Amino acid sequence: MMWLNGQLLPSAAIRIDPADRGFTLGDGVFETIRVDQGRAAYLARHLRRLRDGALVLDLPVPWSDRDLETAITAVTSAGNLEDAAVRITLSRGPAARGVLPAAVSTPTMLITAGPRPPAASAAHVIISTVTRRNEASPLSRIKTLNYLDSILARQDAARRGVDDAILLNSRGQVAEATAANLFVIRGKNVLTPLVADGALPGVMRSVLLERCGAVECSMHPDALITADAAFLSNSLGLREVGSIDGRPLETGSPLFRAIEAEIRQGS
Amino acid sequence: MMWLNGQLLPSAAIRIDPADRGFTLGDGVFETIRVDQGRAAYLARHLRRLRDGALVLDLPVPWSDRDLETAITAVTSAGNLEDAAVRITLSRGPAARGVLPAAVSTPTMLITAGPRPPAASAAHVIISTVTRRNEASPLSRIKTLNYLDSILARQDAARRGVDDAILLNSRGQVAEATAANLFVIRGKNVLTPLVADGALPGVMRSVLLERCGAVECSMHPDALITADAAFLSNSLGLREVGSIDGRPLETGSPLFRAIEAEIRQGS
Repeated sequence: MMWLNGQLLPSAAIRIDPADRGFTLGDGVFETIRVDQGRAAYLARHLRRLRDGALVLDLPVPWSDRDLETAITAVTSAGNLEDAAVRITLSRGPAARGVLPAAVSTPTMLITAGPRPPAASAAHVIISTVTRRNEASPLSRIKTLNYLDSILARQDAARRGVDDAILLNSRGQVAEATAANLFVIRGKNVLTPLVADGALPGVMRSVLLERCGAVECSMHPDALITADAAFLSNSLGLREVGSIDGRPLETGSPLFRAIEAEIRQGS
Repeated sequence: MMWLNGQLLPSAAIRIDPADRGFTLGDGVFETIRVDQGRAAYLARHLRRLRDGALVLDLPVPWSDRDLETAITAVTSAGNLEDAAVRITLSRGPAARGVLPAAVSTPTMLITAGPRPPAASAAHVIISTVTRRNEASPLSRIKTLNYLDSILARQDAARRGVDDAILLNSRGQVAEATAANLFVIRGKNVLTPLVADGALPGVMRSVLLERCGAVECSMHPDALITADAAFLSNSLGLREVGSIDGRPLETGSPLFRAIEAEIRQGS
């Protein structure tokens, strides 16, 4: 079952209009939310970010936080998913041809849920050479439906036999992984690239900055060579990095374990 | 009527799956094609570019050029559209959650047609200050469903009371307009930004380079201040630029008229 614009429907009954600007132009935003035992983790932060992104695109969000929370519960309950990965997609909805949105749009709000992916072993990653994050675009700071740079980098990683890729920005500074923020551990320091350098302001990233002593800093790719350890973070959880461009990194450090324990507390 | 994966159907019967990666991630490419008296202009070039873009995304195109030509005719005929703007959209189709595409996908190929927009008067444009083209991404060289940078720039233009915006690249060089290539006239010279600087290799742009004596060159925004005239080109036609950031440009020059006459000849 999925929730579409206020209605809970079987997925086979859900029709996205072929003129929906989400489909024709990637005109929209989304969130991926972890549900633990029926509870959506960090929901207020996710809904705040969804609204912030919609504001950048001048996209109305005709639903209250309460409406969306109720909808998430309805979708996960209908699927008997105590633990789930929920996705909220908001597109500008159907429209005539043209780049400029109409003055009034009828957005598409779709909420889906699936099983949470199982915890994965440490990720082997490369530094992507096929594309760059565009830190000069406001889109690098919101979670939009324009995901092709990440797709290209992930395809390159797969061709090269690894799990993920780190994207640099247009000036060659480290930005993030294809669907996760990157954190680097050096001694007791936990560092993550700046939003101004092209890191998406991830919900889990903000938690790590506020509660786990992580700090932001501009990061040259050389910083990855001299790291003790590294991990990826997104709303579904943390994943250690086992190697970068073939160079092995330490895994299972007490510092990483402490961070992992900490983020399980919050909401 | 629309054509979806081999079938001509009423638009109300066309359902895009909510899990289609075109909708969830902007994972696909498209073409806009001008149809004149039932004939699709520069069709071979459009289909070549569609296939080139699909190759970059490692996206299969399970239709021959002949299939697609027949489909375009079927759609325009069903709509009694002698003159039309046709759009071909190719997405990777429905898939489970995740950035990496599955090894085998079932692409969505959708062909739609609408009336051609009427010829417009000279466009007043600004140089966008809200976002930049990412010339470091291969996506700047293919026509993908990731159109949000152009949408942001066009929204900014509208807020500032003009028709369109010129996007610079990450290094501050001129790239293109939001849905058209830019050509600048200085004396007898007709100049257009480099693909390497973030210009989409437009089909009409290639015709202008091959047949109308236009040349590519890297272009600082100052070059727009000293231009005699400028025009926008896309597959639906040419449109003169009446002003850039408030500075008026010459319109109706014999050189522009000659170029306009020339592009009507080809195919």
